[in-house]
Amino acid sequence: MRISEIGEFGLIDLVAEMVNKARDEGTASWQNLLIGIGDDTAAWRGDTSTQLATVDCLVQNVHFSLDIISWQELGYKALAVNLSDIAAMGGLPRYALVSLGLPPHIEVDDIAALYHGMLKLAKPSGVAIVGGNISQSPVVFIDITVIGSTGSKDGSLLTRSSAVPGDKIAVTGHLGAAAAGFEMLSKKLRLDAETTDCLKRAFVEPTPRLAEGRLLIEHGVKTAIDVSDGLVSDLGHICESSRVSAQLTIDRMPVHPAVKAGFGDKAVELALSGGEDYELLFTAKAEIIDRIKKSAACPITVIGEILAGEPGKITLIDSKGNHFSPRKTGWNHFSQA
Amino acid sequence: MRISEIGEFGLIDLVAEMVNKARDEGTASWQNLLIGIGDDTAAWRGDTSTQLATVDCLVQNVHFSLDIISWQELGYKALAVNLSDIAAMGGLPRYALVSLGLPPHIEVDDIAALYHGMLKLAKPSGVAIVGGNISQSPVVFIDITVIGSTGSKDGSLLTRSSAVPGDKIAVTGHLGAAAAGFEMLSKKLRLDAETTDCLKRAFVEPTPRLAEGRLLIEHGVKTAIDVSDGLVSDLGHICESSRVSAQLTIDRMPVHPAVKAGFGDKAVELALSGGEDYELLFTAKAEIIDRIKKSAACPITVIGEILAGEPGKITLIDSKGNHFSPRKTGWNHFSQA
Repeated sequence: MRISEIGEFGLIDLVAEMVNKARDEGTASWQNLLIGIGDDTAAWRGDTSTQLATVDCLVQNVHFSLDIISWQELGYKALAVNLSDIAAMGGLPRYALVSLGLPPHIEVDDIAALYHGMLKLAKPSGVAIVGGNISQSPVVFIDITVIGSTGSKDGSLLTRSSAVPGDKIAVTGHLGAAAAGFEMLSKKLRLDAETTDCLKRAFVEPTPRLAEGRLLIEHGVKTAIDVSDGLVSDLGHICESSRVSAQLTIDRMPVHPAVKAGFGDKAVELALSGGEDYELLFTAKAEIIDRIKKSAACPITVIGEILAGEPGKITLIDSKGNHFSPRKTGWNHFSQA
Repeated sequence: MRISEIGEFGLIDLVAEMVNKARDEGTASWQNLLIGIGDDTAAWRGDTSTQLATVDCLVQNVHFSLDIISWQELGYKALAVNLSDIAAMGGLPRYALVSLGLPPHIEVDDIAALYHGMLKLAKPSGVAIVGGNISQSPVVFIDITVIGSTGSKDGSLLTRSSAVPGDKIAVTGHLGAAAAGFEMLSKKLRLDAETTDCLKRAFVEPTPRLAEGRLLIEHGVKTAIDVSDGLVSDLGHICESSRVSAQLTIDRMPVHPAVKAGFGDKAVELALSGGEDYELLFTAKAEIIDRIKKSAACPITVIGEILAGEPGKITLIDSKGNHFSPRKTGWNHFSQA
């Protein structure tokens, strides 16, 4: 069977099963492990704080095209997607290792621009780039590992597996702008200057929600994921890990105003399944979310609730209670769907 | 200017300079950093021990061909090259993140074999595979990050930058077998069964010298690197970082017996510049090396000495004191030499 037949998530399940079978409780690394394969980051007990590590890779013509993203933007984005995973655990990013695959004809100035982009985000985020690797490759890839830690002494984390029926589902910021930006850039759509700029920024320089991740921890939230594959798909990851189901009210989606301006009827679909927004999707009791709304610097919107139904199942309804089916629910490498 | 014109090491220098310029002493990550870009691993002060992190990538048809290495061997080797970097710092490996780039036509069984290979080495090395990433890619690549720590409480490390004139240069085990194995497999050379098996093992399943790295630390050694690019090239990295020169006596090289058996006159050249042996090359006072010889489980051979000459310069002499020039000194991505 080919990997295209089981898809990215089938392959991750297979790998996780093999690794867990080889688990060796006699060794320090396994004894201290808190979270292995299957969440936004790995987590293990350090000496006095919980350590986090995550890796994410951008491959040319799979995740990006140099026709629509500059080298500097690519550097920024490649680091941002990793910092977003740390944010989704409620952690603080500390160190980054940058592994590059590069064809020999690439210009030195382009690699300098790539690093300018990374450093533009690393500096304000308190991240030190401390190592990496450079390999020849027929295709450009940028694979970044970020190591972080929990800020709080009790080692509290935001996981995918702690949602419980009765939790409300909320999301930071707005949705759909990154996917709309990608569509605008790749199809060379002409929109007004303000919309163009806003959607482009959302796609090429997403903001990892590090402060918001910390805020969720401070308010006792236990469950979060970052919106990378797409809202519905990422909520599915929470529901599968937590063995719960969920209902989303599509009319409540905080669709980005620029997406509404540029894409009209298609805006809701982009918000539900576009992905790459890197907002935090989280679940908590209604009163906790109310308190977070008061101290967050960005909008926090309740968009649905966690139910005790079929694990992993997500129902979409409009404000009248009618069911809604998006055409595509998220990004899945190798999927032929 | 293209990256092929400045080569892998020129590119690393450029990147290191940019990153160091962006160094921010006001942040915790930079304050705790002990070693950044330019050694076998990064190192920073943890709460009670020194933390280590390294990343290394194998790219299809650059570092390996699936015609001459199986998926299981590839998994083993991809992890081994990273554990070797931890060994070269004198550390203990703890956690691994595995980032894969895969074309959709790959068989699921091949990925299972890849993980079997990784787990075959991870288990006895005390390493837990705790995360990773799977991306579609036109070419297979396996990019592994390993996070480790120093075993000793004082946080002693083996660095590239601590060699001093008067140090002897020594190496663990034998040299040249991995390069000879690659040549044998890629050119389909027919050698006797024992030599074939030995050289193949050396190339596809190198043993990271983790116990030896720890032993060097226990005996107070300060300087080491693992032989990945090639002995002369890797010694060059030590000499450049330590601002010293070195002299190697080629007749003293511990050329692997199977390399002598299979490659005759070419054996010394393979030992000097072949690379991928993953032995530890280290420098220390003669009496320290004598003590290590007594407790090491593998051969330890003195092959030269550190001198106060032109930084980075390496002179090769035979036992009569005549100069010797190898045709190629090591692996350099993008180099057109």
